[in-house]
Amino acid sequence: VNAGDSTDQGFGSLHQVTIVGTGLLGVSLAMGLRAAGFAGRIVGVGRRSSTLERAEARGCFDDTTKDIGSAVAASQLVVLATPLGTFTDLLGRIAGHDHDDLVITDVGSTKAWVCAEAARLLPHPARFVGSHPMAGSEKTGPEAATATLYAAKPCIITPQGDTDGDALARVRSIWRVLAMRIVEMSPDEHDRKTACISHLPHAVACLLVELAQMGDALDMASTGFGDTTRVAAGDPKLWTDIFTTNRRHMIESLDALSARVAEFRRCLDTGDDDQLLAMLDKCKAVRVGWAADQRSV
Amino acid sequence: VNAGDSTDQGFGSLHQVTIVGTGLLGVSLAMGLRAAGFAGRIVGVGRRSSTLERAEARGCFDDTTKDIGSAVAASQLVVLATPLGTFTDLLGRIAGHDHDDLVITDVGSTKAWVCAEAARLLPHPARFVGSHPMAGSEKTGPEAATATLYAAKPCIITPQGDTDGDALARVRSIWRVLAMRIVEMSPDEHDRKTACISHLPHAVACLLVELAQMGDALDMASTGFGDTTRVAAGDPKLWTDIFTTNRRHMIESLDALSARVAEFRRCLDTGDDDQLLAMLDKCKAVRVGWAADQRSV
Repeated sequence: VNAGDSTDQGFGSLHQVTIVGTGLLGVSLAMGLRAAGFAGRIVGVGRRSSTLERAEARGCFDDTTKDIGSAVAASQLVVLATPLGTFTDLLGRIAGHDHDDLVITDVGSTKAWVCAEAARLLPHPARFVGSHPMAGSEKTGPEAATATLYAAKPCIITPQGDTDGDALARVRSIWRVLAMRIVEMSPDEHDRKTACISHLPHAVACLLVELAQMGDALDMASTGFGDTTRVAAGDPKLWTDIFTTNRRHMIESLDALSARVAEFRRCLDTGDDDQLLAMLDKCKAVRVGWAADQRSV
Repeated sequence: VNAGDSTDQGFGSLHQVTIVGTGLLGVSLAMGLRAAGFAGRIVGVGRRSSTLERAEARGCFDDTTKDIGSAVAASQLVVLATPLGTFTDLLGRIAGHDHDDLVITDVGSTKAWVCAEAARLLPHPARFVGSHPMAGSEKTGPEAATATLYAAKPCIITPQGDTDGDALARVRSIWRVLAMRIVEMSPDEHDRKTACISHLPHAVACLLVELAQMGDALDMASTGFGDTTRVAAGDPKLWTDIFTTNRRHMIESLDALSARVAEFRRCLDTGDDDQLLAMLDKCKAVRVGWAADQRSV
């Protein structure tokens, strides 16, 4: 290992990576690691034989198993790539097979709750490092997985004061080889910001679908409505878990939205068309600037 | 003309169609008519020589001109394909060149205000028929135009009690040859429903961009945020005109949204997670059903 190659930091010591969950995110992670030249074993853990067979068919796993215990015992890194609702059970089962060279991370969409569960359930919480790779698709399952799903997307890592330095380096190395843009912040800052750019937009997309149906207007909807509400086809249970494990920040975000909706309404109601135009001007500039930044990374 | 061929009804009598506005919508209309085999003249009217030259370069116009009067005088159909903010001036100028075989329509995003302006300004308002082809793109200008922009999209036509039957047939024939799905309703019903599926989603996309910036969270935003807020890059002046010419229905839509945001907040605040899940389940079903309907048309 070349010490000057930051992408390889901690990567060489990984003889086995276990990915718990073999859906879109888990299989795309395995495919991405393979495509990046990862030479160790990649083991997929799942609950159903049928899903494991479909994951194996993608050709990126050395083995798949329903036995999480033996997989954890043989691994230097475990990645939870299942819905948030399974985490409490899985962390409890991983705890029983913990060992000195084990690092654990996840791909969950909220972080304060996940890190608190890890602290509560794991014997060595300092070797748990929360991750949130900001990649996804409205498609699901092993068949939708791609080696490039994570490439060039942001990945939030949420180390805390007592996080083990080597564990952090190992988790960084995994996302870095997938060409993700790594950003580090506290679990709370993560949850506040993802409420802004993901959870609130998701809630709003759902409410817009509801209102369009209530207004009997769906048959007139076209491209713009399709874009704006695409995420509303996401998994309801998964999203309920996201909202309820980020309850406080979601409520704050909904309140912030309500205040802006009220201001928009005030502009219309009082004929303050200049203020409306100024607001739309600013939003366009911000949106165009953001899109340009996305293309340049 | 074969009387059994409904797509040709009124189409054969069109010797010249004048399209006022040679941006994305106007040039796409000309290209679509050409692709559909329209044999008459197509004339483009604009204010700037540079834009007219760019439109001519697309090869779909027989002529382009800045002289709206002579173009209107020689036409059997005039289509306003400019921003709403220009309509009052343009309708006034068209009025001075009205003749017995002239039918006028538009592609404006609101209809009650447009139809009221036509009634106020035109000598024969019965030969004005409002249209709203629900097609667009975040791209603009003649270069972004395509012959298929309108194909398979909904087109709302808003005849009123005094609308001339032949005028309505002529306007229907144009959108029908572009393979649009024609829906007819009153201007007021159009405005209420487009507030639901287009104007409110646009306003919300802008507010989400604003909130993401206020929360310093834009660098974490990814695909979902990009989809949900794509329309926020739309032209601010154009959209201010849309909101302000649909003021009453926009205020009603914002109030309906506020009520649903409050209910979403209540579910989170009181721990009514079952109700939240039920709501997301319903939204997913509606969104998936809508997308399936879109694909099947």
